[in-house]
Amino acid sequence: MEMLEEHRCFEGWQQRWRHDSAVLNCSMTFSIFLPPPRSVTPPPVLFWLSGLTCNDENFTTKAGAQRVAAELGIVLVMPDTSPRGEAVADADGYDLGKGAGFYLNATQQPWAAHYRMYDYLRDELPALIQAKFNVGPHCAISGHSMGGHGALIMALKNPGRYTSVSAFAPIVNPLQVPWGQKAFTAYLGDDAALWREWDSCALMLESTEADAIPMLIDQGDNDQFLADQLQPARLAEVARQKSWPLTLRIQSGYDHSYFFIASFIEDHLRFHAQYLLK
Amino acid sequence: MEMLEEHRCFEGWQQRWRHDSAVLNCSMTFSIFLPPPRSVTPPPVLFWLSGLTCNDENFTTKAGAQRVAAELGIVLVMPDTSPRGEAVADADGYDLGKGAGFYLNATQQPWAAHYRMYDYLRDELPALIQAKFNVGPHCAISGHSMGGHGALIMALKNPGRYTSVSAFAPIVNPLQVPWGQKAFTAYLGDDAALWREWDSCALMLESTEADAIPMLIDQGDNDQFLADQLQPARLAEVARQKSWPLTLRIQSGYDHSYFFIASFIEDHLRFHAQYLLK
Repeated sequence: MEMLEEHRCFEGWQQRWRHDSAVLNCSMTFSIFLPPPRSVTPPPVLFWLSGLTCNDENFTTKAGAQRVAAELGIVLVMPDTSPRGEAVADADGYDLGKGAGFYLNATQQPWAAHYRMYDYLRDELPALIQAKFNVGPHCAISGHSMGGHGALIMALKNPGRYTSVSAFAPIVNPLQVPWGQKAFTAYLGDDAALWREWDSCALMLESTEADAIPMLIDQGDNDQFLADQLQPARLAEVARQKSWPLTLRIQSGYDHSYFFIASFIEDHLRFHAQYLLK
Repeated sequence: MEMLEEHRCFEGWQQRWRHDSAVLNCSMTFSIFLPPPRSVTPPPVLFWLSGLTCNDENFTTKAGAQRVAAELGIVLVMPDTSPRGEAVADADGYDLGKGAGFYLNATQQPWAAHYRMYDYLRDELPALIQAKFNVGPHCAISGHSMGGHGALIMALKNPGRYTSVSAFAPIVNPLQVPWGQKAFTAYLGDDAALWREWDSCALMLESTEADAIPMLIDQGDNDQFLADQLQPARLAEVARQKSWPLTLRIQSGYDHSYFFIASFIEDHLRFHAQYLLK
């Protein structure tokens, strides 16, 4: 594991690391924010999953999350959005291949050799963070757009793993929208029945009430992708049926950009802190 | 004048505009943050000048300044760092030509036709902002590195114009450092006596006490450019001689990056607010 960058930031440290991933079969880069030590208790971790076209640096440089993470004493971990490198399959277009891993395990060629972001995020990366940094056992997860989808499926598929989950403008029902249909066809094949285990609406519908954790979603009503790709009301309806503690906030005038994320990331950090720091 | 982008941000609006500059003889882009209305009094303006290689978007996306500007009711104006376009002279290297206008009026060829950032920032852009937006008469100025130099010379050369001035890691004495010597030779010619009117240390030495305004400078002690290019202690010594109200803060462990700016921009905004909002 090699440190690529380190910057002092809000009395903590913003670092960028490269490591060899056995799961993804390539070299991967992640960013991490380590808050200034506040107590002898190791700090909990919030994983942040970014959206299409992003890498580990978008949230790191644009969201302004370090200020509140430093205050609260929360480690932020920002993974990349897909496997990387010359040996890794790619496609034309921003919504498939590199930068568009959709946080699942691909079963189809040419993707199956590297595109296993789900296993990477569930097993390999958390183990690496636990081994290399002074962090506590509690973790939560959040993300934006495709990364909001990632955060939601990670939480829904792993009851007990996360104290809480949140998302900005997530793809909640990839089964039913163009981004998801294109990616799932390529990564998972034509049998849409197999897609259900990577769809937040479907997963929540099959969940049990005992597995529910607090969930916060922010969605701008001026988001260009709202009608065609996002539609968080679909998940809110499932949450109502299943009595999931979902708070969906529609933010007036906000779009899909990092200006939207920056405006509300403090709320998300304080939301997670209620459960992470218990 | 054409709006290129608009995003809701912290209940205000982040906008990007293009306009034809008569002074620079080219099309220019600037960004502006308009805070949510707090009262019937039009808000004051803080001009932010960026450093080498930057344009209007670096501070806009990375500094996290909008949160506090929204709270305080301050308009942020982020100009570009040089004239732009195919007709504009350029040079190899990041420290001369486009992205490196040094906020002066060039007298030498091939630069003199466009490189008049000083006149643009002193006259044309403020007049445009006053005419097109609902802003009050008070303004202040801040910047980073080359833009810190720009903020300081704008304030020192225009007594009474700004309520206050601040800078992050500014080039305070370009006369004496490689970045300044290269740029001033190209833009102003070989006669170093003519450089003095663009050098903060020289300008402050010739200033009168009545013209002094509050000045805040933050400098990281882990800044890779500190020893060779910055040396803010030189300006602090002049300020001491001239009884200028300069606060120079050396921030332990911080470097030259936007992580440094993000960590302390709130202090700068609150510093300026004391004078802007009187």
